[in-house]
Amino acid sequence: MTISGRLLNVLVVSVLLLASAAGASFAQPDPLASWNEGPAKAAITDFVAKVTDESGTHFVEPDDRIAVFDNDGTLWSEQPVYFQFAFALDRIRAMAPDHPEWKDVEPFKSVLAGDMKGLASSGEKGLLEVLAATHAGMTTEEFSTIVADWLVSARHPRFDRPYNRLVYQPQLELLAYLRANGFKTFIVSGGGVEFMRVFAQEAYGIPPEQVVGSSGKVTLEIRDGRPVLVKQPEVEFVDDGSGKPVGINRFIGKRPVFAFGNSDGDLEMLEWTAAGDGARFMGIVHHTDAEREWAYDRESNVGKLDKALDEARQKGWTVVDMKDDWLTIYPTEN
Amino acid sequence: MTISGRLLNVLVVSVLLLASAAGASFAQPDPLASWNEGPAKAAITDFVAKVTDESGTHFVEPDDRIAVFDNDGTLWSEQPVYFQFAFALDRIRAMAPDHPEWKDVEPFKSVLAGDMKGLASSGEKGLLEVLAATHAGMTTEEFSTIVADWLVSARHPRFDRPYNRLVYQPQLELLAYLRANGFKTFIVSGGGVEFMRVFAQEAYGIPPEQVVGSSGKVTLEIRDGRPVLVKQPEVEFVDDGSGKPVGINRFIGKRPVFAFGNSDGDLEMLEWTAAGDGARFMGIVHHTDAEREWAYDRESNVGKLDKALDEARQKGWTVVDMKDDWLTIYPTEN
Repeated sequence: MTISGRLLNVLVVSVLLLASAAGASFAQPDPLASWNEGPAKAAITDFVAKVTDESGTHFVEPDDRIAVFDNDGTLWSEQPVYFQFAFALDRIRAMAPDHPEWKDVEPFKSVLAGDMKGLASSGEKGLLEVLAATHAGMTTEEFSTIVADWLVSARHPRFDRPYNRLVYQPQLELLAYLRANGFKTFIVSGGGVEFMRVFAQEAYGIPPEQVVGSSGKVTLEIRDGRPVLVKQPEVEFVDDGSGKPVGINRFIGKRPVFAFGNSDGDLEMLEWTAAGDGARFMGIVHHTDAEREWAYDRESNVGKLDKALDEARQKGWTVVDMKDDWLTIYPTEN
Repeated sequence: MTISGRLLNVLVVSVLLLASAAGASFAQPDPLASWNEGPAKAAITDFVAKVTDESGTHFVEPDDRIAVFDNDGTLWSEQPVYFQFAFALDRIRAMAPDHPEWKDVEPFKSVLAGDMKGLASSGEKGLLEVLAATHAGMTTEEFSTIVADWLVSARHPRFDRPYNRLVYQPQLELLAYLRANGFKTFIVSGGGVEFMRVFAQEAYGIPPEQVVGSSGKVTLEIRDGRPVLVKQPEVEFVDDGSGKPVGINRFIGKRPVFAFGNSDGDLEMLEWTAAGDGARFMGIVHHTDAEREWAYDRESNVGKLDKALDEARQKGWTVVDMKDDWLTIYPTEN
């Protein structure tokens, strides 16, 4: 080989390396490695292949690749109680020294005594009082700090991990896989928007402006000469049930092509997604794994899945059987 | 030169071409070509240079480069009346054949007679009736179609162009310049969110989920077996004045580092932006060009700029003098 021949070789090899670095045709590791092979995984990859194929009839423009996910029970666990509710109970205990009157007044008395039956008997009014005491009266920035501190210090009773380490590994992979295929991923949850935004970026790679949730009223006030937003003890919006399509319309302004939920509170969001034109994906996480997570559906107080399960089967939506479809549940690192 | 020497040259030149194609150090056309050289343009480019300099003390992470723009009078014109109001009046005229009763009932009688004084005398109640008649009672999709049709057919009385061609060329360049520098650009406007979303993507490159605005209530209904969202004649949220920081908190969930407005309705948004830590940019469009656009500020019924002008000057915010700072006002194509 002449010197010029070798240089030509170097040039050709350089170009090939550049091409492969740009993501050409090498064998890739499975982006959904925590999903077992089966109908659920196939439905996801088939859908994504279909809507990203520019030459196909199901092609969806990148701008319209809107994917929405419920949070509790869909992206992270929700047992034995919604994690935001665990936060509220922990806050009552932490705030109690400044509220000596609470030990004689319901619903606080029951919370402080660890009497969940007593709390339940105070009904919706009692629950709203717990939420108001723990989610209002401070600025939005103070609230974010309180939630961030709680996420660092609190441990889930069963798994002894921070709550934000009880996110589902297969769903983290799915979120990343969708984004790698040009989707914009949103949370659309009944949970509090300001609660979720504290951890959604780090946990899911979802920035605050792509989190849709329930909210309380906030008002602009001047404190120490500086404008602040103060959280008020008044519900502004409940992003659950028929509120989910309303929230999607209000915050996103486009109909999703991909929606994932796990309970009857997600049914209207799934129906709203399904009612659009063109290719659609509707998925439901069915909690079937009492050993690694929990098994519950029609009779559960938390994340009840009844009507939506029937409708999913009837309409051919994708029902994820957690036990069979997920190789791992949580990220391995603690 | 030997053959191998020439090949080496080819390789070197190829690498240089690749580097320049990747955006290295060639002279670029001015991304803000419609901005005259002056303090306003310098303030913008200085700010962007500062917050994108990773080695500097003012560096802002890309995730936190949130830029918010008012719409009416900041991104497009707002005279002689807010364009959405022109839309509402046109709709009343278009709908009148189906509402024979309107010719005898205020405020519709005045609208149909072209009597703006009569309409004004019906006060806020009259204006809300006009809005309810034209912005409610249809599905969100029907409303979008009505707005899109209006944008194609209606012409601005002074300039004889579609309203969405009366956007400001310098601001289009600024939006693109910010995005090229890693900013996420949002509209935060008192205008109706569902009205603006129809044209914001095409006019400004701002997708629906990055438009924050005022809204009416919508409800989920089933029509012909299909879920639809129906617009109700009830104000849900007014994204103006102190509502702007509230809207930013609700929809974006982060404090902007860059804000642009043009009226007293933007003052709280500008103050909210200014009150954050680190480098900030606060800008105001001052309408000083009666020849090419309009000249108005403290005494105007539309886009009144009084308190915010004083505060901008006192605090050293950037005040754009439209006549001096903008080389062109509107895009050249009709």
